[in-house]
Amino acid sequence: MSPNDSTDDNELEMYGRMFVAVDMIENCQEFTSLIPEVRSNLVYSRPAPLTRNDVLAVDGRITIVQGMPRAAGKPRFGASSHMARLIIEVSRVDPSIRAGIDFANDPKIARWLEGYCRSKGWIFSSIDRRNEPEEIKEAEGASMPWKVMEAIRAAGGRVPKITYETGAVGKEPVSVLLGRDPIEVAVEVCEIARLYHAGYKP
Amino acid sequence: MSPNDSTDDNELEMYGRMFVAVDMIENCQEFTSLIPEVRSNLVYSRPAPLTRNDVLAVDGRITIVQGMPRAAGKPRFGASSHMARLIIEVSRVDPSIRAGIDFANDPKIARWLEGYCRSKGWIFSSIDRRNEPEEIKEAEGASMPWKVMEAIRAAGGRVPKITYETGAVGKEPVSVLLGRDPIEVAVEVCEIARLYHAGYKP
Amino acid sequence: MSPNDSTDDNELEMYGRMFVAVDMIENCQEFTSLIPEVRSNLVYSRPAPLTRNDVLAVDGRITIVQGMPRAAGKPRFGASSHMARLIIEVSRVDPSIRAGIDFANDPKIARWLEGYCRSKGWIFSSIDRRNEPEEIKEAEGASMPWKVMEAIRAAGGRVPKITYETGAVGKEPVSVLLGRDPIEVAVEVCEIARLYHAGYKP
Amino acid sequence: MSPNDSTDDNELEMYGRMFVAVDMIENCQEFTSLIPEVRSNLVYSRPAPLTRNDVLAVDGRITIVQGMPRAAGKPRFGASSHMARLIIEVSRVDPSIRAGIDFANDPKIARWLEGYCRSKGWIFSSIDRRNEPEEIKEAEGASMPWKVMEAIRAAGGRVPKITYETGAVGKEPVSVLLGRDPIEVAVEVCEIARLYHAGYKP
Repeated sequence: MSPNDSTDDNELEMYGRMFVAVDMIENCQEFTSLIPEVRSNLVYSRPAPLTRNDVLAVDGRITIVQGMPRAAGKPRFGASSHMARLIIEVSRVDPSIRAGIDFANDPKIARWLEGYCRSKGWIFSSIDRRNEPEEIKEAEGASMPWKVMEAIRAAGGRVPKITYETGAVGKEPVSVLLGRDPIEVAVEVCEIARLYHAGYKP
Repeated sequence: MSPNDSTDDNELEMYGRMFVAVDMIENCQEFTSLIPEVRSNLVYSRPAPLTRNDVLAVDGRITIVQGMPRAAGKPRFGASSHMARLIIEVSRVDPSIRAGIDFANDPKIARWLEGYCRSKGWIFSSIDRRNEPEEIKEAEGASMPWKVMEAIRAAGGRVPKITYETGAVGKEPVSVLLGRDPIEVAVEVCEIARLYHAGYKP
Repeated sequence: MSPNDSTDDNELEMYGRMFVAVDMIENCQEFTSLIPEVRSNLVYSRPAPLTRNDVLAVDGRITIVQGMPRAAGKPRFGASSHMARLIIEVSRVDPSIRAGIDFANDPKIARWLEGYCRSKGWIFSSIDRRNEPEEIKEAEGASMPWKVMEAIRAAGGRVPKITYETGAVGKEPVSVLLGRDPIEVAVEVCEIARLYHAGYKP
Repeated sequence: MSPNDSTDDNELEMYGRMFVAVDMIENCQEFTSLIPEVRSNLVYSRPAPLTRNDVLAVDGRITIVQGMPRAAGKPRFGASSHMARLIIEVSRVDPSIRAGIDFANDPKIARWLEGYCRSKGWIFSSIDRRNEPEEIKEAEGASMPWKVMEAIRAAGGRVPKITYETGAVGKEPVSVLLGRDPIEVAVEVCEIARLYHAGYKP
């Protein structure tokens, strides 16, 4: 029997990258202050994803236990719905973007992130959900394509590194950071957590 | 050294009741469909609670892992902020109410819960956060007393068994079930989950 | 439905005491050096136990994760076989003894424990498994009654606080500490771990 | 910052292979009957390992929780001592062997394994620890090189697929299965567990 009969080499490396990325986040105490009420998820998609089953995510999301970030379960394909749809939409515009994380969002964090992106030369975008057309709000699954297109449009046609979203009724707003793989995303979001927590002014 | 030097007998029984209640919920597969985006928490307060440190709660909340409810961490005093404040406010009106759980909420669930409460002879209440005065929204920590008083007022001065809340901007609405101890709360919310999931019409 | 329909009050307190005791051990870093290859288990029996299902124990035993003691699973009735049989045998001689823990054992620890017991006024006993009769070794389940009786005999007819056992072929020897409830046992074994680790000479 | 600054590509794939292998074992219910008292560990070494820090292993070993195999912690370099030393010794003889698992061992399993190896064309070896020279028993860390060399000698100079060991005083005997990577090892040991459990006669 071949060592990797049902799991091809690329998936093994995907699992390895998720494992290392989750471990980084679990060891970043400062990230707890960026975990939103809905908890964070970290996602990593196969190239050209079509459904949520093409997207690795943390089963049960990343929560806070004993004052540290804690992945509630293991990385599994299909474990995310919301963040998986986001990464699927983004990959249609820029196939190199395969990973992302959502995190907390309030006006103070938003201003900080905007300044930080400027200092890093990163594209920052924001979307105002009050602009979301009623017919899109009402159609099941239509919000995510609208949100992604709105964020890209606001960034002049490019995929933003970080997107800030205003809340809608019944929806907690989150920030999203995107990247090529989950280790890149984890390194960047942990740096943000540490600098923000330390009071660094970008 | 006495066997329970730093933990009095009542606390030992509190831990025991939380342990059994969490175990019940973790074994109720149907409850997964009632876990909101912000995840559920189960709380249990000491008599006459003053601060969150008087309230036992599940560290990291109750999330979904491998298709089952899963407590992310252990019960700990001080592990909840939102639900702890709720139970503190309620206990001022009815000191016998010491436990509660928050769970999902949409118009379909709300109608079902209202009918179910009627069939059980339970008090049902609902609050509309659009009625929340601006000065209360803006004052840190003022929303919870307003919400609890509003729910009790709408129920004719009594503490409701179940309260339904409409969402505000940036806030996911939740339902809340209250009781005397976490085992009562777990038994009741698991029965609701099973009946709702089975398509039972109250 | 009554709050505790299937779990009587004494069991709720039993769960509470196990919860608190396991938490103490998980927070005692020094105990890691006393965890044997077979791992430790902490047990707590109902009064007058007849079978392993009358004995609470840590499902999966207590192992070492990230350098700290870690209960692999939750306390469950029936989760232990070996330590459950021990506590059942002991309870026949002294019904007040309902809890125990097994931990590491080598000649150096044994000498230290003997001195420590002397300084505390505790009964210390040791058994030499080379004395175990062949017909007992070969009969399934006969070793434990022999071991318990041997330890009590060597202690002049009383149940020892701590028993030291020499290894047999294929059997890792362990030390056992007994008490009335798991909090007493946890407090005592954590004190032993801290003093032994600190180089204290009893 | 590069996506994998401190972790090279080979290590990412190593983590991925361990993750998938541990997941396979955790889902093989029949493996519980092959978990010894000392618990199982699965190890995976870097090429040409020199110390335990070159060997990935399951932190806290693989135990049994709720009737299923459960990794107590995550895979970590340095988490094993005993199995790490074994794989280091073996790799000196055959550098292609980088993974292994230890599991239960009694005369009945041993006979079964010997027959199974014959049917698969695998090399089976056994070592009798009563033959271990006294000076080796007494020298710290000397047993493992002796055991590995003894197993290879008994197998005519080749590294055996499976080795059976008789117990020594104070030592639970285990069986060991070796392979090129942890997925191969997990696939093979789970097949053994299922066939042995089903009463298959090799």
